[in-house]
Amino acid sequence: MTTTTATTDNPTTAASQVTVLGLGSMGSAIAGTFVERGYRTTVWNRTASKSAPLVDAGATAAATAAEAVAASPLVVVCLLDSAAVDEVLASVDTAVAGKVLVNLTSGSPAQARANERWASERGAEYIDGKLMGDPPYVGTPNITVLLSGSRSAFDAHESALRELGGVGYHGEDAGLAAVEFMAQVAMGYEMLIGFLHVLKLVRAEGADVTEFGERVAGSLAAYAPLLTGIAKAVASGEYPPDLGPLRVQAALMDDMIDHRESVDVEAVRMRQVKELMDRRVADGHGEQGFSSLFELLEKEG
Amino acid sequence: MTTTTATTDNPTTAASQVTVLGLGSMGSAIAGTFVERGYRTTVWNRTASKSAPLVDAGATAAATAAEAVAASPLVVVCLLDSAAVDEVLASVDTAVAGKVLVNLTSGSPAQARANERWASERGAEYIDGKLMGDPPYVGTPNITVLLSGSRSAFDAHESALRELGGVGYHGEDAGLAAVEFMAQVAMGYEMLIGFLHVLKLVRAEGADVTEFGERVAGSLAAYAPLLTGIAKAVASGEYPPDLGPLRVQAALMDDMIDHRESVDVEAVRMRQVKELMDRRVADGHGEQGFSSLFELLEKEG
Repeated sequence: MTTTTATTDNPTTAASQVTVLGLGSMGSAIAGTFVERGYRTTVWNRTASKSAPLVDAGATAAATAAEAVAASPLVVVCLLDSAAVDEVLASVDTAVAGKVLVNLTSGSPAQARANERWASERGAEYIDGKLMGDPPYVGTPNITVLLSGSRSAFDAHESALRELGGVGYHGEDAGLAAVEFMAQVAMGYEMLIGFLHVLKLVRAEGADVTEFGERVAGSLAAYAPLLTGIAKAVASGEYPPDLGPLRVQAALMDDMIDHRESVDVEAVRMRQVKELMDRRVADGHGEQGFSSLFELLEKEG
Repeated sequence: MTTTTATTDNPTTAASQVTVLGLGSMGSAIAGTFVERGYRTTVWNRTASKSAPLVDAGATAAATAAEAVAASPLVVVCLLDSAAVDEVLASVDTAVAGKVLVNLTSGSPAQARANERWASERGAEYIDGKLMGDPPYVGTPNITVLLSGSRSAFDAHESALRELGGVGYHGEDAGLAAVEFMAQVAMGYEMLIGFLHVLKLVRAEGADVTEFGERVAGSLAAYAPLLTGIAKAVASGEYPPDLGPLRVQAALMDDMIDHRESVDVEAVRMRQVKELMDRRVADGHGEQGFSSLFELLEKEG
């Protein structure tokens, strides 16, 4: 393993020099992609042996995180979790001055914003990123790189960041990439747990779950106008009767709950929806649409 | 208003004679479509005045439901609710012998199966149907007619039924159209209530809900393979690690719950999902996928 710092006799330009901190499966895939695309890539990992395949491929291994940071203007961080990020950043400390940190480690919006403050206090620019996709897809359009934070840093390093996958920049607030990640993942889980409940119903009634699944999958795109309409209603604070007025929908919901209970399928969510509808109707909003339930989704209790 | 019974001097064939019981907005749209397409259409409604526009258009109004039933081999029923269906069918009773009843009134799978037995005992064939779409779309592909029940009756009257919209035949069990309807509507509500929760999160974090809605709407179709995969897993009873092993997903779910709570967004559903994941992991199924939560969706309590 060799130690390196930024050198002026290297023919590569600053824009093609990158450091990667963390060589787990994702970090290794990231560093490997940069090496492949001709970037002068410096790598560091707590367990140094992880860097061997990358060094074989052409990367340079640094002995410490601080030395790795010093080697490149762009420093990509991809560690196990936020605790590991805190620890590594603390060890690097003021070595980040003048650098652009792109932290692709899993974490919350609040952690991203805290990292941004930490970097700013040390004269570094900070971009937070979340990867949607698995390590084998790094470097292909099949991985999405959600980014937010310093716009100027993003502009300066956009081409390098685009090497990793499909890039979306979500704004100057460093927390927004994590917000988008959490929201997209949550949307997936909400849809899937709902789908499982519906499959339970379909199975309980003796219908074919595979064929039903294919019909739902085939008609998913038909929901797009409804979703964009609901988002607009929420944005405007006006709630037109999207699926009909709530007072009518509430009656349908009773039928849905009765049906679930008649075939012994758990109906917690449907009862919650009914209760929210009843509250809106009782509050005089029975002519509004489903979107108006948005007003009632504050933390319970 | 005139009274009619089936006449032999009418040049139309039996296949183009239809009776419609119930002239609410949906029943009127159905009868109007049959009249328009040249069917010899007989109509009946409890409040007789509703038939006037249809008679003007060329329909014949019957004085009683029994007379209306006697007028055509195919009798389409579209009333307010199942209670109205019970009442009208009781008034008609054995007049249904030899007829095909197609009941498009809202109702449960159990009600459909009970109607099928009632019709069968009186020598009638029964098809249950559920309409997905609004009255103005009757007669266009923008309304879906879910049908189930007597296959021979469906085959005999398929062309008439296809006048009403896009037709799907779901099997001999008369309850299956209602199952499909309940399941499709439930899927929509599951997706929409989940979407509203996610919008609450997005809004709480200061991101743009309209733009987020557009991104979700634009990527809905990408969930199709996941849904068909989960349906297949459920059908087979084997649960491969679709989104990764459950033990890993459970940790992610903790992050999602913490995040919701940190921004005061209600997290009932996410906690339910986490609890289900924990139970599967505790039962030794931590290497299975999300689909395996299917095993735990029986009625609670």
